[in-house]
Amino acid sequence: MGRDLSALFDPVSVAVVGASDDPAKYGHAIAAQAVRAEGRRPVHLVNRRGGTVLGRTAAPSLSALGEPVDLAVISVPAAGFEDAVDEALRCGARAIVAITAGFAETGAAGRARQQAVAERVRAAGAVMVGPNCLGIADNTTDLFLASGTFTPGGVALLSQSGNLALELQLRFGPHGLGFSRFVSLGNQADVTLVDLLADCARHEGTRAIAVYAEDFADGRAFAEAAADAGKPVVLLTAGRGDASARSAQSHTGALTTSADVVTAACRDAGVELVATPRELTVALAALYSGRRAAGRRIAVLTDGGGHGVVAADAVETSGLTVPELHEPTRDRLRAALWEQSAVANPVDLAGMGEQDPGSYAATVAALLTAEEVDAVLMTGYFGGYAAAEGGLGGGGTVLADGEQEAARLIAARHSATAKPLVVQSMYPASPSCRTLAAAGVPVFAATEDAARALAVTAPRPPHTGVVPLPRPAPPLRKSGYLETRGALEAAGLPFPVAREIHDESELIAATEEFAGPYVLKALHLLHKSDAGGVALRLAGPHELLAAFREMHARLGAPAYSVEAMADLTDGVELIVGVNRDPRFGPVAMVGLGGVLAETLRDVAFTLAPAPADRADRLLRGLRTAALLDGVRGRPPVDVAAAAAAVATITAFAAAHPEIAELEVNPLLVRPDGVLALDSRAVLA
Amino acid sequence: MGRDLSALFDPVSVAVVGASDDPAKYGHAIAAQAVRAEGRRPVHLVNRRGGTVLGRTAAPSLSALGEPVDLAVISVPAAGFEDAVDEALRCGARAIVAITAGFAETGAAGRARQQAVAERVRAAGAVMVGPNCLGIADNTTDLFLASGTFTPGGVALLSQSGNLALELQLRFGPHGLGFSRFVSLGNQADVTLVDLLADCARHEGTRAIAVYAEDFADGRAFAEAAADAGKPVVLLTAGRGDASARSAQSHTGALTTSADVVTAACRDAGVELVATPRELTVALAALYSGRRAAGRRIAVLTDGGGHGVVAADAVETSGLTVPELHEPTRDRLRAALWEQSAVANPVDLAGMGEQDPGSYAATVAALLTAEEVDAVLMTGYFGGYAAAEGGLGGGGTVLADGEQEAARLIAARHSATAKPLVVQSMYPASPSCRTLAAAGVPVFAATEDAARALAVTAPRPPHTGVVPLPRPAPPLRKSGYLETRGALEAAGLPFPVAREIHDESELIAATEEFAGPYVLKALHLLHKSDAGGVALRLAGPHELLAAFREMHARLGAPAYSVEAMADLTDGVELIVGVNRDPRFGPVAMVGLGGVLAETLRDVAFTLAPAPADRADRLLRGLRTAALLDGVRGRPPVDVAAAAAAVATITAFAAAHPEIAELEVNPLLVRPDGVLALDSRAVLA
Repeated sequence: MGRDLSALFDPVSVAVVGASDDPAKYGHAIAAQAVRAEGRRPVHLVNRRGGTVLGRTAAPSLSALGEPVDLAVISVPAAGFEDAVDEALRCGARAIVAITAGFAETGAAGRARQQAVAERVRAAGAVMVGPNCLGIADNTTDLFLASGTFTPGGVALLSQSGNLALELQLRFGPHGLGFSRFVSLGNQADVTLVDLLADCARHEGTRAIAVYAEDFADGRAFAEAAADAGKPVVLLTAGRGDASARSAQSHTGALTTSADVVTAACRDAGVELVATPRELTVALAALYSGRRAAGRRIAVLTDGGGHGVVAADAVETSGLTVPELHEPTRDRLRAALWEQSAVANPVDLAGMGEQDPGSYAATVAALLTAEEVDAVLMTGYFGGYAAAEGGLGGGGTVLADGEQEAARLIAARHSATAKPLVVQSMYPASPSCRTLAAAGVPVFAATEDAARALAVTAPRPPHTGVVPLPRPAPPLRKSGYLETRGALEAAGLPFPVAREIHDESELIAATEEFAGPYVLKALHLLHKSDAGGVALRLAGPHELLAAFREMHARLGAPAYSVEAMADLTDGVELIVGVNRDPRFGPVAMVGLGGVLAETLRDVAFTLAPAPADRADRLLRGLRTAALLDGVRGRPPVDVAAAAAAVATITAFAAAHPEIAELEVNPLLVRPDGVLALDSRAVLA
Repeated sequence: MGRDLSALFDPVSVAVVGASDDPAKYGHAIAAQAVRAEGRRPVHLVNRRGGTVLGRTAAPSLSALGEPVDLAVISVPAAGFEDAVDEALRCGARAIVAITAGFAETGAAGRARQQAVAERVRAAGAVMVGPNCLGIADNTTDLFLASGTFTPGGVALLSQSGNLALELQLRFGPHGLGFSRFVSLGNQADVTLVDLLADCARHEGTRAIAVYAEDFADGRAFAEAAADAGKPVVLLTAGRGDASARSAQSHTGALTTSADVVTAACRDAGVELVATPRELTVALAALYSGRRAAGRRIAVLTDGGGHGVVAADAVETSGLTVPELHEPTRDRLRAALWEQSAVANPVDLAGMGEQDPGSYAATVAALLTAEEVDAVLMTGYFGGYAAAEGGLGGGGTVLADGEQEAARLIAARHSATAKPLVVQSMYPASPSCRTLAAAGVPVFAATEDAARALAVTAPRPPHTGVVPLPRPAPPLRKSGYLETRGALEAAGLPFPVAREIHDESELIAATEEFAGPYVLKALHLLHKSDAGGVALRLAGPHELLAAFREMHARLGAPAYSVEAMADLTDGVELIVGVNRDPRFGPVAMVGLGGVLAETLRDVAFTLAPAPADRADRLLRGLRTAALLDGVRGRPPVDVAAAAAAVATITAFAAAHPEIAELEVNPLLVRPDGVLALDSRAVLA
């Protein structure tokens, strides 16, 4: 159910501790914002020197108020922070917004200090945002406890950076996007990104959640909360690159997670992952309407060839298709358009839009209702006919109201269907484009933004969410080859028959139990294959014995494993591994084995445990996946069995927190099933 | 030297045929523009009904002017086009701008008509732009023969789309980019993109050339002209995708070329290839200054963590690095900045920029002079301190002049070095950012644009230009396996020894000439390997004979080739092919052989002939190139020999225009050289 943050977002009363009359102090900016909503709830200003702040008498201390305070903003020097928090708790504060900086971001000592404070806050049954944060705001409760104003709207922004939040605010405006809430995450000593995400998911006034985070706190819990949010979650994160990882670490004292893991977690949880504020804005503009396309087939229309073909390329580049239109649709277009208009896809009005903007509306109508079209992109000059400067085609000769009327018609057609319509215009701020935007049609100035918006609304494989970690199984006591192999076999992963041997007599005994060809492996060596500790294709007992003598003379290993050699014919070798990420817990990696695949690093990641259906998608998504279907006349291999094996391996690893690394390599997939040929575990 | 276009861009006199008083007619818009420059040269208006146009008496015909005309703009209905052109030529026109539409874009008949006209124009020693074009403009000669005005500047725009040209004009403004020339290409019946590119390369007033083209006319000549331009050439082209190729074809009647070929030609010619108007603007803004970075090491600075790490990620994503700063640089920064400022890379002023914008200038100075830094990216809030709204950090408390002074200092530091400095600002239109832009520092609103700008200025491998096609060699008369093999061998490509045989006695004779192991190939089969017409690893004469009997019984091929089996140990198999593109001529493809590589389509393209150094770069650029260096303890293969073989094969194909397709597959590369194991040619 998550923590109760009602005192944080809708407190009965507010006090700003460290309120200042000095405009250069942040305590001034916050106080000025806080008092804006005084009608809604009492707002007290506290300054230890008393005096007047913003023309009113400031109390010298919270206690001096003589009444309880529900939420305390604390913006005092670091030295006085603990005392201020303790006093706030004594005065009944259920929520604290800690602006004061100088804690975890400065190193271990600061981290210890903030942890101690957070424990006292929790012990008192209160919640604390920060420290080292810029405040919070909730437009749905008139709570303004951060400098700067946020245009009201339906987006909750949870951000670890103030300037990025400001850039987003500037970018949202032209798209009619506004904020339900803003929370500056700060150091997350008590209230974390996860707590806030869960609360915003429950928050009625919030339709979409935007996150900028460098430190995910509990990354797995973040992914779980996002998967269950029931509203679009868009994540802007840094730390994908070497430098930003370096910086984020020193900057927030946070461990960073590889981009592969963050990308996998977002895909698993259905989070839209973006890399820049601009991308985040485009994704939100596309998702905010809640419209999703039923397929990936896009119709493009323009008035003048260039924009149409450039947009069609951009659409295809973003993974969508621009298919030929069916004959009935072409007929409708022929009936509505000029003879020289191109009724292919992209549709080119070829100048008719300039003479009769209504032709845009007729075309949009035909395309939105065409069964072979999942979404529509209108691109180019629309918006400019009424604009001051005329087009090279002689624009400006059309009356503004003609274009406005077309915009209203297009908006009507749009609201009459559930299909996404996206517009790229050279004049996104024109009255006609504002009419479209007001009707919920996303309008962009850049072709690539419009294409990205369409990609964001395209259907995804149903995200299977995040599978909860299983209850830990009895831990492995040893990580030796045969122990790991045995445990995986017990968990249901098939291996060839094997016997541990220590001398020639045990070797002979093994050959009497099962027939060759054999494999001989030296045990208790770190990298047996590199050390020449593996011998393959030993036809019979004779060859096995010879190999054993040679290997034992060379390596003198304490023990060996004699195994039945698997039939590699028509098989494909996979690698399946599970590592533990400090933030996201067990993370699985699947990929093709062999030299070339390793060279390509053709691998895919997902949170463990991975259900078979997700494992199946990952395998089929590999660049080299065609090999699984059989090439050059080979039979296809049993991908379902491979996916089931991945599910078994990842569930096993997730149930064994003591295993830091687990690898099954190779996992042989044949037309008739799978066989694990080798495995390796490293205990934490 | 290219065609003389002086009459086109600086005519002695101009006449607009089809000048109209009707504002809805294009002949009106052009006439209105043309008369703007009357002071520079006489401008005559012609309307076959005479009367007044723009308040002046229009001549009923060109002849009626009673004086020669140097340049004639023809904007009459298609029916009267030929007569108008002929009359213009009779009146001494050396240049014609043909607005009239209805020719190649409408089909074969129209194409024939425009070709006939173009021949008469050339016969008269004149030049013609169009038909189906929107006109031309030259700001360096006050020639305005297109509707709409183009802000003067140093960019020549050659465009096949009017609306895209208009979008570029709108996008150029904020970056201080303007136009030296604008030419609407139209159908290129006479004057082609290539002619215009060559002329703009010679044009003093042009510093950079921007091209939007769907139809390259002679693509190879375009690449050659661009390679020799001596100024930045940025190409926006459509037709990469299926839909746009369909459309461009129907739209311009032009054959389109695959994106692979266009990309290869641009790389060979040093052309910056972009996909959208926005990218084109970013590339020009970056290239216009002429600054090129000496390396790929970028220093990032910001004031507030978020923007720094997001920008660092974007920079690394675009193929650049954000390295750690050296100690001397850190010391300089420590001396200039706050204690809490991060002097890593990205540099984070951590709030100091707000209190003292001069700290930005000090940091930029330290970074621009650091030997470990090739270019600098300043990102985030700069520009906002003086902006109306304050930052969440309490911005707006700093005086505008402090930021302006910092901007002037930064501009000074910039002009004191040759290193690129790029700025991303939330307030790109702020006075401080305008100060930077005016000093030649590119300023962008979007992080990804700033990163792209840095990538564009990063060093490229020296483009080897476009190698001219060799004089044709005596043509191959037959495309049989042994003929092709023999011709390639004669050209210097090594093959294993081989003998053509037709019966067992010739087979025995062959085995007496050279030892096994042998390869047996059935000849004159379309796909010998698919048909089971290839037998490998035949140890000796006995195995060879057996294979021959089996194969001959099965296939009954008229002839066979007995070849020495190459030693494949430690070898890597490549594919080298050459096809003929209708626009770009012979185009080479190199890639790794084998099932997996084919599945990946890990191939690279270049115009043929390909010099060895370029072939070397292509091979090392393959995703699977690591295999060439030897993996898992294998020795590296002889890439230099492989590159030389590619040069031989592509030179051979280029000298044989009768060969439509040539493929050497596999080309075996070993540590000690190369050996072609099979080859195939298809005659045109």
